Amino acid sequence: MITVVKIGGNVIDDSAALQAFLRDFTALTSPKILVHGGGKLATSLSRRLGIETQMVEGRRVTNRETLDVVTMTYAGLVNKGIVAQLQSLGCNAIGLSGADANVIPATRRQPVSMTTAEGEQKTVDFGYVGDIDATTINARFIGFLLDSGITPVFCALTHDGHGSMLNSNADSIAAAIATACAPSTLTYCFELDGVLGDTGDPDSVITQITPSSYEQLKREGIISKGMIPKLDNAFAALHAGVSRVIIKSYRNIANSSGTTITL
Amino acid sequence: MITVVKIGGNVIDDSAALQAFLRDFTALTSPKILVHGGGKLATSLSRRLGIETQMVEGRRVTNRETLDVVTMTYAGLVNKGIVAQLQSLGCNAIGLSGADANVIPATRRQPVSMTTAEGEQKTVDFGYVGDIDATTINARFIGFLLDSGITPVFCALTHDGHGSMLNSNADSIAAAIATACAPSTLTYCFELDGVLGDTGDPDSVITQITPSSYEQLKREGIISKGMIPKLDNAFAALHAGVSRVIIKSYRNIANSSGTTITL
Repeated sequence: MITVVKIGGNVIDDSAALQAFLRDFTALTSPKILVHGGGKLATSLSRRLGIETQMVEGRRVTNRETLDVVTMTYAGLVNKGIVAQLQSLGCNAIGLSGADANVIPATRRQPVSMTTAEGEQKTVDFGYVGDIDATTINARFIGFLLDSGITPVFCALTHDGHGSMLNSNADSIAAAIATACAPSTLTYCFELDGVLGDTGDPDSVITQITPSSYEQLKREGIISKGMIPKLDNAFAALHAGVSRVIIKSYRNIANSSGTTITL
Repeated sequence: MITVVKIGGNVIDDSAALQAFLRDFTALTSPKILVHGGGKLATSLSRRLGIETQMVEGRRVTNRETLDVVTMTYAGLVNKGIVAQLQSLGCNAIGLSGADANVIPATRRQPVSMTTAEGEQKTVDFGYVGDIDATTINARFIGFLLDSGITPVFCALTHDGHGSMLNSNADSIAAAIATACAPSTLTYCFELDGVLGDTGDPDSVITQITPSSYEQLKREGIISKGMIPKLDNAFAALHAGVSRVIIKSYRNIANSSGTTITL
């Protein structure tokens, strides 16, 4: 069983937490894959370079300059930093973007028609953003790496096949890789101990969520807006063949804590 | 026979020249490996970020901030830009640093004792600079990639095995890879058509250099200072098992132009 672990910005921005996480990750005995987000480095580099972050309807636009910044930080600084650290811990890691060996081809998102808060229709181009399809992932190459004892470390970048890198969502990449490499488990690590029954109480972790309990939690308003895309991703991965999805703290990847999502 | 091609800054800084070069590189039918330098991007990014380039005795020092900048530009922007372009041309490239799959382990250069122009003894620490040894290169992994029809694209970064990336010389990396992957040929591409017999005449290309003609060219002062390290690298690679070293223009990699160095 292949384990796909995704870490987000919180752990990447905290070097002591990252070091502790990578130590625990190295200790996992199953064949494993790491997918990482970008953290605040891209935002702070953009600020230092005087590049404005363009937001449309609350979502970030990846223009040419921003694509360069995320390519430098995600594929360069963050990815190679993680790979070098894993190597020092005895984990034979290889850093990859979706362009490398054409592992994750993507399609540039077409401009979308949106209705603004004022009720106006508006066409929005999110720029160099890539949507992925799990069926196009090069699982054979990933399988070879794992069979050779090599641990792939993916940053959240793909490419369009026409010469340009694309910015993709790290949660979606992790789900697509887990799907393409099934049988697999998918672990989303974040700063909390799991999906909470009461957002004010960090100990109120819901240990298991099924499709029916998910519907109920949404009806009762217990599951917050930010968690819904992650859980939708989780259920989509389960329906596509992933054995188990776990949402838990990056501090506890070695134990059985967290929220398990199953069909 | 494996072909190792090294390109330097001039072609990387010129997007039209790079595109043309990558087209010619893609057309090479032998199993091939690309090694690229960094170009001016690292220097211009350093300037934009207000990071001072520290020089000691005419040589650049890679401090922590500079290492971050070269990791972002070499492994991020330049490497992924080349990989995405090669993918669009039908060349299944994979971008690698020396840390990835531990392909090129390196040793951090120890502070060296130097004599200044004023005759003083001085200890100089060049910082995060990695020296490599061709015998430690993971040629088996490179061989697997080539056998799978995948073209490795190396940036000039290695790692120390203790968690840090290191800045290494791209010419030396190319020579070490060619040596480790022998039988191989090594092509150093630059802006001129080859080693010139008369630096004032771009058409005065010396078509062949052997150890004895090299000694004579040096004695006569025909080979300039800047070319000597490149030729020393070339002869070292030939002595270590590389079949042929060629120094030529990046505009002409497809034809038999340039200077051929043989034993």
